[in-house]
Amino acid sequence: MTGKLNFLMFSLALIILSCNKVEEVKKVDAKGKQNHPSLILTKQGVEDIRSNLGTIPIFDKTLAKAQKQIDDAIEKGFDVPEPKDYSGGYSHETHKKNYVLMQKAGVLYQILDDDKYARFVKDMLFAYAKQYPKLPIHPKPRSYARGKLFWQCLNDSNWLVYTSQAYDCIYDFLSEEEREILETDLFRPFADHISIANPQFFNRVHNHATWGNVAVGMIALAMDDDELLDRALNGVTVEDFDPDQKDDDGGFIRKHGQKTGFFANVNEPFSPDGYFTEGPYYQRYASYPFLIFAQALQNKKPELKVFQYKDSVLIKSVSALLNLSNADGEFFLLNDAQKGMSYYNTSLVASVDIGYHFGGNNPEFLSIAKMQDKVTLDDAGLAVALGIKEGKEKPFIKRSIELVDGSDGDKGAVGILRSGELELVFKYTAHGLSHGHYDKLSFALFDDGQEVIQDYGMGRFVNIEQKGGGNYLKENTTWAKQSIAHNTLVQNETSHFKGTYAIASQHHSEKYIFHAEDVNVQVASAKEENAYKGTNLHRTMVVIKDEENKNPYVLDILKVSSDQSNQYDLPFYFQGQVMQTSFEYTKLKVPEIMGNSYGYQHLYKEASATLEDGNLKLNWLANNKFYTYTAITYDQDEVVFGRIGANDPEFNLRNEQTLILRKTKTKDALFVSTIESHGTYSPVSELAVNAYSNIDKIAVVYDSKEYTAIQISMKKGRQSIFIISNEDNNQNTDHIISLEGYEYRWKGSYFLTNIK
Amino acid sequence: MTGKLNFLMFSLALIILSCNKVEEVKKVDAKGKQNHPSLILTKQGVEDIRSNLGTIPIFDKTLAKAQKQIDDAIEKGFDVPEPKDYSGGYSHETHKKNYVLMQKAGVLYQILDDDKYARFVKDMLFAYAKQYPKLPIHPKPRSYARGKLFWQCLNDSNWLVYTSQAYDCIYDFLSEEEREILETDLFRPFADHISIANPQFFNRVHNHATWGNVAVGMIALAMDDDELLDRALNGVTVEDFDPDQKDDDGGFIRKHGQKTGFFANVNEPFSPDGYFTEGPYYQRYASYPFLIFAQALQNKKPELKVFQYKDSVLIKSVSALLNLSNADGEFFLLNDAQKGMSYYNTSLVASVDIGYHFGGNNPEFLSIAKMQDKVTLDDAGLAVALGIKEGKEKPFIKRSIELVDGSDGDKGAVGILRSGELELVFKYTAHGLSHGHYDKLSFALFDDGQEVIQDYGMGRFVNIEQKGGGNYLKENTTWAKQSIAHNTLVQNETSHFKGTYAIASQHHSEKYIFHAEDVNVQVASAKEENAYKGTNLHRTMVVIKDEENKNPYVLDILKVSSDQSNQYDLPFYFQGQVMQTSFEYTKLKVPEIMGNSYGYQHLYKEASATLEDGNLKLNWLANNKFYTYTAITYDQDEVVFGRIGANDPEFNLRNEQTLILRKTKTKDALFVSTIESHGTYSPVSELAVNAYSNIDKIAVVYDSKEYTAIQISMKKGRQSIFIISNEDNNQNTDHIISLEGYEYRWKGSYFLTNIK
Repeated sequence: MTGKLNFLMFSLALIILSCNKVEEVKKVDAKGKQNHPSLILTKQGVEDIRSNLGTIPIFDKTLAKAQKQIDDAIEKGFDVPEPKDYSGGYSHETHKKNYVLMQKAGVLYQILDDDKYARFVKDMLFAYAKQYPKLPIHPKPRSYARGKLFWQCLNDSNWLVYTSQAYDCIYDFLSEEEREILETDLFRPFADHISIANPQFFNRVHNHATWGNVAVGMIALAMDDDELLDRALNGVTVEDFDPDQKDDDGGFIRKHGQKTGFFANVNEPFSPDGYFTEGPYYQRYASYPFLIFAQALQNKKPELKVFQYKDSVLIKSVSALLNLSNADGEFFLLNDAQKGMSYYNTSLVASVDIGYHFGGNNPEFLSIAKMQDKVTLDDAGLAVALGIKEGKEKPFIKRSIELVDGSDGDKGAVGILRSGELELVFKYTAHGLSHGHYDKLSFALFDDGQEVIQDYGMGRFVNIEQKGGGNYLKENTTWAKQSIAHNTLVQNETSHFKGTYAIASQHHSEKYIFHAEDVNVQVASAKEENAYKGTNLHRTMVVIKDEENKNPYVLDILKVSSDQSNQYDLPFYFQGQVMQTSFEYTKLKVPEIMGNSYGYQHLYKEASATLEDGNLKLNWLANNKFYTYTAITYDQDEVVFGRIGANDPEFNLRNEQTLILRKTKTKDALFVSTIESHGTYSPVSELAVNAYSNIDKIAVVYDSKEYTAIQISMKKGRQSIFIISNEDNNQNTDHIISLEGYEYRWKGSYFLTNIK
Repeated sequence: MTGKLNFLMFSLALIILSCNKVEEVKKVDAKGKQNHPSLILTKQGVEDIRSNLGTIPIFDKTLAKAQKQIDDAIEKGFDVPEPKDYSGGYSHETHKKNYVLMQKAGVLYQILDDDKYARFVKDMLFAYAKQYPKLPIHPKPRSYARGKLFWQCLNDSNWLVYTSQAYDCIYDFLSEEEREILETDLFRPFADHISIANPQFFNRVHNHATWGNVAVGMIALAMDDDELLDRALNGVTVEDFDPDQKDDDGGFIRKHGQKTGFFANVNEPFSPDGYFTEGPYYQRYASYPFLIFAQALQNKKPELKVFQYKDSVLIKSVSALLNLSNADGEFFLLNDAQKGMSYYNTSLVASVDIGYHFGGNNPEFLSIAKMQDKVTLDDAGLAVALGIKEGKEKPFIKRSIELVDGSDGDKGAVGILRSGELELVFKYTAHGLSHGHYDKLSFALFDDGQEVIQDYGMGRFVNIEQKGGGNYLKENTTWAKQSIAHNTLVQNETSHFKGTYAIASQHHSEKYIFHAEDVNVQVASAKEENAYKGTNLHRTMVVIKDEENKNPYVLDILKVSSDQSNQYDLPFYFQGQVMQTSFEYTKLKVPEIMGNSYGYQHLYKEASATLEDGNLKLNWLANNKFYTYTAITYDQDEVVFGRIGANDPEFNLRNEQTLILRKTKTKDALFVSTIESHGTYSPVSELAVNAYSNIDKIAVVYDSKEYTAIQISMKKGRQSIFIISNEDNNQNTDHIISLEGYEYRWKGSYFLTNIK
């Protein structure tokens, strides 16, 4: 990859009339190897764009918006302020705005061939070139890798990724002397700061390092600097940093001998399915540098075949990411993630366009691009605009899918079951690096894009300065990452892996079954044997659709086996208003704090009940739909209504509720429940339709080490039995068991049958 | 009104082939006075509809849906179950569905001229005629006026209002004998039950009585029964009921000597502006019987000139109601009201169509009808469909408006100030009959249709059986009606009028100023002198727009004068998440219940602070917008963060927050604050724009019995002074006051000027 590279040589002599009418003759490029633009735009691409302008609506519209924005910015003038603030503050937001403006102005210069855009970029670049050499380390101390323009090298890297594109676009507009000044005073020291000066940032496998690598790589390609490119692709070699040093989030810095640089960052976090181990929120964030740099590499170093790398994983990652969104395009909340982030984010516009242009023109991407209603102003965006213009798009249909985790695909997976308007997200992945949550075998449920059984997401208000400078809040660690904040089992009020990253990052859940071919019974099943030493968890989530009921429903079987007696808590984060319960509960006069650690310190107990053998039902209303949770209960099971918000001195948490099913002094346990979306309400017609559960009763009819069988009895009369083989997931094995005098025979790891 | 009425005489002889091929000869009508249909459809109307079918899209679409619904119902068959349940239960919902089906089937018979629809109505009517004579009083005991089909006469009346229309439509399809059976066994005893047998229901001025009057009136018109019509228009005369009897909600029954019947129900609750004293939620509910009966009266008794009654108040009421909705068409929450109810409700479709057809073809109504996307299947609906087809619609522009309350318009008002995307609803009305809340001088604020400073609405989940049979919950009385549940002043932790209906219903607030002509300074001001004996409240709400700030902001001045020392609480029900406060507060480890009565028993105190002279700022995020509340504070003022939900054993309340500004041991007080919608956030771009308040400081620069002057200083430098004359609201008075060495002169009751 790092061998000597040969390029065609070009000599350019351009005569440019500047506005103050001084003639300037561009010198022949001394290096002679350049051909600009060549990162996201190519000479041919620019020609093609120009010849299509006015006939490609989505491109024309995006261009007009960009032009309006930049024309306004040119009129208003720009500021290159002294670096001072955290996210959300003036200097932070201004430097951030500046790189976006430069990137767009550079592109406009190429497409519209109007020097004013080049001058805008040039003037701003020179203002930075003047400021940069004198800059100390950024005054805000919170980061493990402090930048110069921003409080963290991460944001400095963002700046360079965008600015490199602008530089590439106006490269030929500048004289050699001007380029020399910019490269010497600004770009090279800038690249050095985020790489050589901060190996603890640059030499990692993490989205931070990806941005760092790509920043150095993009400027390397723009400057045609092979030394910098090598650094971007392979990392820096330094001897004197602490291998135990961790980042702000507790993640590890890459040790010596481990691969670093861009390709390591593609290879390791992406699974063969294109799943990014940090989760979709960070995949979205990282997808921009991954794909923009891949595009630039493809344009300038096609021999590297970056898009074919690891069986075309970068292209697969675009599809994977789109599949990790709900009906409204919002990403599932796996690990640290902000609610509402969606494929309408700008970085997804680039990902989809690049994925289309360099990934075989998948027509389904065009339908996403059409919804995004904008394209990148480059060769990829042109390809998409032409594809849409020519009516090539097909709907991007999200089906049930399992996406494996781990570089080699052997570290668990995310299982997504879709049926009707329900989308169930079941997480049995690896930890997810420093942004991982302690939530093995957790799930969330969406109904027509609305989160009904929620994942809390992260404890952070991104870029909202009022809330901890827009950065991670301490409640992200004390609450959002903890197991009790998720819809999964918590043993003895302690988080999985004791909430310790060093332990958690060594393990992953094991996928057991994923079959979604039969729309009437879709099954995802997984095991977790490391979250609690001596305790094995096996969770099976089934989405069942029968002709009797309008909507599918979820069957959840969580089998717990332990070598000792424990307390088990299974929280159920339903969103909405309690309508009715089948059990009598006692509401406390005043809430009580549920515990002291592992997130329990943030939960209030509001009400509780002691249960008997049978079923509990919780019926609630959310977003004008009626839902019912039916769970099998045993004598002395407890149930707690909890609410988030204790020990929250600055109102950083959302005061949402949960229902916790608790078993005390129990070794082996079976948690079985169903979730139905069965009815609707309209506050306009005031009509309540099918407000009650369709399910009469659920019962365990068999449970052994080998098999678990659940009977579901509907109010209308239908009775079904679902049987899972707990130890043999081979789809070709024949099974026989006897239940209540009947013999059940089937082939494969599970079986659903109607008995009435 | 009740004199002998003459009608044209018609004789009809129709030969109808029934499906079992028995010939039946329709006899000449003995009464001979009929001409059917004539309530909502007329013979001419039916002809016109038939000739336009297929060319009037909105009508055709509504018709096709109705046809599909009724065809399905005919295929499925119907049930006339034994009356058993409260709202939400099977028998309740089925009888409710039945009358809707009959009404639609009747209309379809007329429009489509297909006997199957008439037979469907006839069969169902005969099933009811068979059931009704044997029915006891409905078994559910909760109502003060129990029905026979339903648990309350109110629902029985609903049934008759719709069924009368169906009967009118198939009148000529039936033989005289058949009509005799229906009238004798069903309609007349039905009408008697809801009138003569239940004068405590029928002889009121209340939406219940309106439905009762109209039910009797509609069947009277269908049957051409003048005695029943007289009863509908003028009430029943009975001697032996308790004049002190109250309804379920604590409202009074009409006493002897007071006017009763339909016209009394038009005359008294509607103000000259068409404001309905119970508030828009119940106006919406009552508007259907008001307008449907007015339509029928207009068609059958045009000499009564019902639409001209009280200076065309019924037509005005349609405009008034539309103006009482937010940007999304949802009604403001005045008194008992369910969130989400909007002008998309079916009764508003009828109101808008009838209002258009009988009220001078106001083209603005057409734009509402177009949004409703359906019309009534009658003469009025045809007129609207033709109007839309001919492109006559104009936008219904909601401007700032004051709607007076009280039969003669002298019992206060609702002031609505609109500016940009803000809609401020300020309530200084009479009590609002039995659905009134104890919330004098309360307000709510909407931003682009989203409620930002909320009115809680009612404590009820309408028609959701799980929640108290879908009826009012006890928390409606103990919480939702109480003063502390509203954005208004509470003295000594006691509700206005001690929360006593008998007192509250005797008083109303006094309007003081309403001027909205100048879009830069719109003022609504009102006084309340009866809520607390010895204490006078004067609140002025101003919406100010200046060129410096993108959005308008609200200035709120609440002047309190008392003859004794009190505690004052001013709650502020902001919706969303706290971002930042200017003051340090102490969050309690565990919430405390704030009191024992008047709603305080339902509030938890979560945090509190003691303040100093100056300003408090509360900055929060709701629906991706940033808001700031800035309030002038004085030394020893307290602030409490409260949350709804204490003493709520069945999770009937929504756990929402408030901020309460508290002054203790105070006689006279001045509460001054501003509310800004100043910024935006996007979870997709993660950009926070203008996250902080634009206001630097607000201060009282003058305050006397005569004048109050507030200075508002913006961060960008502008300083403004708003002065209100507290005792003279004449717009022609000249005023002079000196403030800090400057003399201010102006004409009128208030003055806003920039001093910097």
